[in-house]
Amino acid sequence: MIGDWGPQDRSGLTPVPGGATAADGFRAGGVASGVKASGRPDLALVVADVPAGAAAVTTTNLVKAPACHLTDRHVANGRAQAIVINAGNANVCTPEGEAHAQRLADATAEQLGLLSQDVLVMSTGVIGVPLPVQRIEAALPALAAGLTRDGGDAAAHAMLTTDTRTKQVAYRVSDEQGSCVVGGMAKGVGMIEPAMATLLVVVTTDAPLSGPVGRQLLRAAVSRTFNRISVDGDGSTSDTVALLASGAAARPPGLDTLARGVAAVCADLAHAVVSDGEGATRVAAVTVRQAATEADAETLARAVATSLLVRAALHGADPNWGRILMAMGNARVDFDPRRVSVRCGGITVCRFGVAATFDRGQAAVAMQQPEVSIEVDLGSGDAAATVLTCDLTPEYVRFNAEYTT
Amino acid sequence: MIGDWGPQDRSGLTPVPGGATAADGFRAGGVASGVKASGRPDLALVVADVPAGAAAVTTTNLVKAPACHLTDRHVANGRAQAIVINAGNANVCTPEGEAHAQRLADATAEQLGLLSQDVLVMSTGVIGVPLPVQRIEAALPALAAGLTRDGGDAAAHAMLTTDTRTKQVAYRVSDEQGSCVVGGMAKGVGMIEPAMATLLVVVTTDAPLSGPVGRQLLRAAVSRTFNRISVDGDGSTSDTVALLASGAAARPPGLDTLARGVAAVCADLAHAVVSDGEGATRVAAVTVRQAATEADAETLARAVATSLLVRAALHGADPNWGRILMAMGNARVDFDPRRVSVRCGGITVCRFGVAATFDRGQAAVAMQQPEVSIEVDLGSGDAAATVLTCDLTPEYVRFNAEYTT
Repeated sequence: MIGDWGPQDRSGLTPVPGGATAADGFRAGGVASGVKASGRPDLALVVADVPAGAAAVTTTNLVKAPACHLTDRHVANGRAQAIVINAGNANVCTPEGEAHAQRLADATAEQLGLLSQDVLVMSTGVIGVPLPVQRIEAALPALAAGLTRDGGDAAAHAMLTTDTRTKQVAYRVSDEQGSCVVGGMAKGVGMIEPAMATLLVVVTTDAPLSGPVGRQLLRAAVSRTFNRISVDGDGSTSDTVALLASGAAARPPGLDTLARGVAAVCADLAHAVVSDGEGATRVAAVTVRQAATEADAETLARAVATSLLVRAALHGADPNWGRILMAMGNARVDFDPRRVSVRCGGITVCRFGVAATFDRGQAAVAMQQPEVSIEVDLGSGDAAATVLTCDLTPEYVRFNAEYTT
Repeated sequence: MIGDWGPQDRSGLTPVPGGATAADGFRAGGVASGVKASGRPDLALVVADVPAGAAAVTTTNLVKAPACHLTDRHVANGRAQAIVINAGNANVCTPEGEAHAQRLADATAEQLGLLSQDVLVMSTGVIGVPLPVQRIEAALPALAAGLTRDGGDAAAHAMLTTDTRTKQVAYRVSDEQGSCVVGGMAKGVGMIEPAMATLLVVVTTDAPLSGPVGRQLLRAAVSRTFNRISVDGDGSTSDTVALLASGAAARPPGLDTLARGVAAVCADLAHAVVSDGEGATRVAAVTVRQAATEADAETLARAVATSLLVRAALHGADPNWGRILMAMGNARVDFDPRRVSVRCGGITVCRFGVAATFDRGQAAVAMQQPEVSIEVDLGSGDAAATVLTCDLTPEYVRFNAEYTT
């Protein structure tokens, strides 16, 4: 992994194939329901063999999708057995949104013989257009009948929107106590005509986890991974990260080991999302160290990672430390600029607030890599945080400016 | 003026030529000192005939230019007589920054026969590179000797960096009590290799104003004009707005009238700055109305105006209300999305949180204008605020990504 991104200790973690169905006790699948005009797959289902420990984190956007509200309600008891995901229409800002989200859950439950309460819903795509819910209802029987133990890949395809590739990862996670598998899939931050970025993530494990403990693990992982990436600087109305734990693993590892597994899966998926950012050609890990608190470090790293000028400089492979200092100076966090040092691609470009002497050719080469670390030392403490971002490119603007109505 | 931007009541205001030297009691000029490698003018001076009432607002960026610190100190007594402005080097993040800012003030004072304390300093340009202060000192005698009553234009040219044109405005401001002139000049939000956006503004008037009253007028005007524009979303280390009042007007208007004059000058200059944003092809006035408080309205309008997705949609002339709602939903201001209506270019595109029926061809024409209003009604109060922004273009990214080191 790039720079300080994700858990540094990956001992006991071995990559395995299978994505969201890598862990025992899950089946999945994906089909084309006709919601996407292109006819591409747009309906995914992930189902546990038994009621699973469940947790979810949904968007903090005030304009919140009915699917997110429904998922919040259904996951509140710490239990769920299925996640239905539709792409192509976010079911947001429409008069019938709540009724349609409920119909998705009801229809899924009916096909699977579950309680509606045990179904979580994710929707992504165009907003402000009524969801053609009948098409989804019509497609669900075949999808439910065709679920397989290796259907993670089909599900990962069916949740995509403007993503250029699927995002899947899984690890076998072992320690002296035992082992389990943690896997997952994501759809990235892609704009949908005429709407918005949405992050959807499913994490599965065969470790046994109660809902409350699962929520702890998931929140801890999300706070340092999906909450520390930036492509647009905008959070969507529909962002959802959900975890299902089937309990099929006979001898699971300790909770700390499991937590590292969940964190690694979230870090890898978050990295994949940023790498596939629209128009992005380069990923940067912005790490702020020697801060008074982790919150300070995160605020400053986020200010750098979301600065248009820094992201444009990143596109130009320009180690522009002036823009980095300026972005931090706007963040309303107290620090002493005269103590700040900055490294770009491992090369010190600013030392104690003034220009360092460095080889510009060497810096250009370091900044031209597909993955670049930007490291800032504040000299005022020992807390650190890393935020992942991508370069701002003319292609991004062109893509998001296309006349869509 | 576009939409609700600037003071709506412009009665008694008549445009006049002359910019920063339109008001009586001022002389100005501009020369090339050689700080800019291009040999273009880069040193400007505005001087009052007598010690003037003075006020200034400088950047809130924690990484603050030595020139800003000096200007803060020198203006604290409410009096100043000259403003020296150099372009091409911001004198920021260099070991000798404070000494060099002082030398600029001292050398200017010496040439003009003033106290150093009565000189304000503004610097803009590259950061992290020592200011070639000797070149400025060498150029000052000729500049001071060549000051003229119509030198506002020369000064406005000499303060530019990547701006494509000068920004100058002046009004004769009259009421039953009397009249005066308020004028000014600005340099816009342009990135300097390898540095940052900087906004520099000089406002002059021949009305008599004490420093404290001048500060009140200036702060009130700045809070609704220069503090409500967005090009990069980043504030610079060097932003400065300064006001000098010569007192040469024999029969000035009332204070409220004068305040409207200052507000109009600031609004016009701020509009000129946004219009000349790098790569910008279109300006939008984002007005949020029916908010509980003006602070809420401003926060929401700013969230819309700084959203990359909204600004990219603006470039594509796309009335993308979904992105507008999403940007507001992230702003941590409480509102009810089901009460929100949105007009783009005067056309209602969202009514009470859901899609409105509108003519897409008509909307496209309305959005393709060089100036577009985006109006949001919240339905939760009667406060309003307008923030000015420009479209995000591939040219902006290209310009700011150029390899500069």
